[in-house]
Amino acid sequence: MIFVTRKEHFNAAHKLYNPNWSKEKNEEVFGPCANENWHGHNFELIVTVKGTPDPDTGFVIDLKVLGKLIKSSIVDRLDHKNINLDVDFMKDKLASCEILVMEIWKILEKELAAQNSRAKLHRIKLVETPKNYVEYFG
Amino acid sequence: MIFVTRKEHFNAAHKLYNPNWSKEKNEEVFGPCANENWHGHNFELIVTVKGTPDPDTGFVIDLKVLGKLIKSSIVDRLDHKNINLDVDFMKDKLASCEILVMEIWKILEKELAAQNSRAKLHRIKLVETPKNYVEYFG
Amino acid sequence: MIFVTRKEHFNAAHKLYNPNWSKEKNEEVFGPCANENWHGHNFELIVTVKGTPDPDTGFVIDLKVLGKLIKSSIVDRLDHKNINLDVDFMKDKLASCEILVMEIWKILEKELAAQNSRAKLHRIKLVETPKNYVEYFG
Amino acid sequence: MIFVTRKEHFNAAHKLYNPNWSKEKNEEVFGPCANENWHGHNFELIVTVKGTPDPDTGFVIDLKVLGKLIKSSIVDRLDHKNINLDVDFMKDKLASCEILVMEIWKILEKELAAQNSRAKLHRIKLVETPKNYVEYFG
Amino acid sequence: MIFVTRKEHFNAAHKLYNPNWSKEKNEEVFGPCANENWHGHNFELIVTVKGTPDPDTGFVIDLKVLGKLIKSSIVDRLDHKNINLDVDFMKDKLASCEILVMEIWKILEKELAAQNSRAKLHRIKLVETPKNYVEYFG
Amino acid sequence: MIFVTRKEHFNAAHKLYNPNWSKEKNEEVFGPCANENWHGHNFELIVTVKGTPDPDTGFVIDLKVLGKLIKSSIVDRLDHKNINLDVDFMKDKLASCEILVMEIWKILEKELAAQNSRAKLHRIKLVETPKNYVEYFG
Repeated sequence: MIFVTRKEHFNAAHKLYNPNWSKEKNEEVFGPCANENWHGHNFELIVTVKGTPDPDTGFVIDLKVLGKLIKSSIVDRLDHKNINLDVDFMKDKLASCEILVMEIWKILEKELAAQNSRAKLHRIKLVETPKNYVEYFG
Repeated sequence: MIFVTRKEHFNAAHKLYNPNWSKEKNEEVFGPCANENWHGHNFELIVTVKGTPDPDTGFVIDLKVLGKLIKSSIVDRLDHKNINLDVDFMKDKLASCEILVMEIWKILEKELAAQNSRAKLHRIKLVETPKNYVEYFG
Repeated sequence: MIFVTRKEHFNAAHKLYNPNWSKEKNEEVFGPCANENWHGHNFELIVTVKGTPDPDTGFVIDLKVLGKLIKSSIVDRLDHKNINLDVDFMKDKLASCEILVMEIWKILEKELAAQNSRAKLHRIKLVETPKNYVEYFG
Repeated sequence: MIFVTRKEHFNAAHKLYNPNWSKEKNEEVFGPCANENWHGHNFELIVTVKGTPDPDTGFVIDLKVLGKLIKSSIVDRLDHKNINLDVDFMKDKLASCEILVMEIWKILEKELAAQNSRAKLHRIKLVETPKNYVEYFG
Repeated sequence: MIFVTRKEHFNAAHKLYNPNWSKEKNEEVFGPCANENWHGHNFELIVTVKGTPDPDTGFVIDLKVLGKLIKSSIVDRLDHKNINLDVDFMKDKLASCEILVMEIWKILEKELAAQNSRAKLHRIKLVETPKNYVEYFG
Repeated sequence: MIFVTRKEHFNAAHKLYNPNWSKEKNEEVFGPCANENWHGHNFELIVTVKGTPDPDTGFVIDLKVLGKLIKSSIVDRLDHKNINLDVDFMKDKLASCEILVMEIWKILEKELAAQNSRAKLHRIKLVETPKNYVEYFG
């Protein structure tokens, strides 16, 4: 079993905001992350798949194919967007990295299955700032 | 003459948008950077000052003092904010890095002068993405 | 289960030195790391916790809370210190990264338990130089 | 159990090329990576071993010893070389990172065993570009 | 005057080899860099231009335009190539970074002039390894 | 004129301490950097030289030669040392980066001159932490 990883980037705006709470409660819990007019990040999306290498190519997956899949199914829907307002698969969800990473997993797992890829999704890692990142293994 | 540099960070939302233009013209010129609902970045703000070391301390400037000055006069006004909407010194200005870096220069130059610091401002560098940055030398 | 990671930094001096050995034996085994007058590093302390997101906040743990916990219980006791001489929890222990990382684990595990956090400690990673790091999973 | 990691580097040329295929088929499958006249990379080789610390040294393994082992058994055979043409242990194999990382594992596992090291090989990670890396756990 | 910088990447093979010298002399002078069968690098190409911001856009140059220019005129001719064999503008030249950076300057200066860009070329920086880079200011 | 840069590393302990001042005054001015028992850093030493490429080699300077010169004349005297106690050229000087970088300049300038190198020293950059660095141009 070999683990193969691809990094992609996107820039997006968001705020941490629970619509069931008052503005004051949101500011108390989320602090500056609740700023009404949004803030944003350069997100680094790091996708790891696993599998055995194809004997003809030496590839678990062609990394250019994986890169395109990540771009078309995830990055193009998040890049230069507002995660709370513009992203269909985040509608009515809290725009935290923890939730985002689980939603990204669901989409990519389905995409890989649809391609009958020999690679299985192993990990989604999402880097929000140089100090903070989250990981999900399904 | 010694050059001394301090890096600080802030996360902010913005959009590139000329209010004298139609929405279509903005999208044509600025592309996804004009996204109505904003996008954002982890900005890296890198400030270089120059001067001769104080013979008693070996310092051109105490870097903790410089760090606090950058934080109180710049970072606290930009971090977790919307550059177009929330930042007084960017009011009615295009929220591009080129404009931002010139406005940051004006503020920091005044602050250093007010402190009678032996350090003179040399360069403001603003990193917007891993691929793009701007610099201003006054 | 989501894994959430926070990075913090500290600068410290240490030497690798076994007090049961002669100076010559220490130099033979530890080489320049045994330098009598110490050497030092910029240590990067990377803490991963795991848990399920709180449905109200989308957080496994508030990363600002985790950052403060790491700072108050670990970084403040190590930063700008001598690990062999100044750090109570390293008293009479070898000041290697392997030992340090296990001691940090004990403290942080207790702190998280004391807070009834939904996050459980998963990994302590300690980066000593750009080429060397250690990890501990309890 | 402590995990200890060492990073080393090498610069090498290679091409992705299946000798059982026509030139056209190779270009179709591997694209620019099949360029007849080679291309190359700065590879980052990251080796993790695991074990319990020696009570006399606090070491799972002396990282200088591990570094020398990686250099003499792997890096010296790959650095400033052509992976397809110059590297004995890659003879008649596809020069993909997936294959390379498995061959490196075999060599390092044997070397550690020959030294009766208390450290056991845990992971080989090979970074080919800032966007792509592979990992192997045996 | 604002300085604006764009980073692009390419992976290439090369060797340092003076055709007027014997194989032995080349190996003596260039060491492993003269390896007959080539070696390679992940090159980072960092281009800085300077100018005054356009009052309508806040741009010295649209960085997406600059990125495309660098890609079409430089990166596409170097990426996944052999610098000694495949690159027309390096024909009969020593494939050192010093020579390469001067040739890249000539091409990009002409391209910017052809576009009547308000941006003037300021610096070409070429990073060959994590330890080595060269710069040229024309 | 081409500018060529080489990065080297060293790990060292130091404290900021003016022997003409009381312990209290030192702590007041230098804060935790005055810690009696030292602290330390991973220093990154970045040396830039300038000159015209040799027509036979394409080199301003052989970077392996420059690397060895930096190692033998600077790094070997600082690595795994205490800057205040162990380093002859820092005797009776304040161990700040500003002073250190000027002393390194003096030594490297003399060494390059002694070698009749076509390269002239251009800049010494010393990175002390991820947030702080100093530069000296002679």
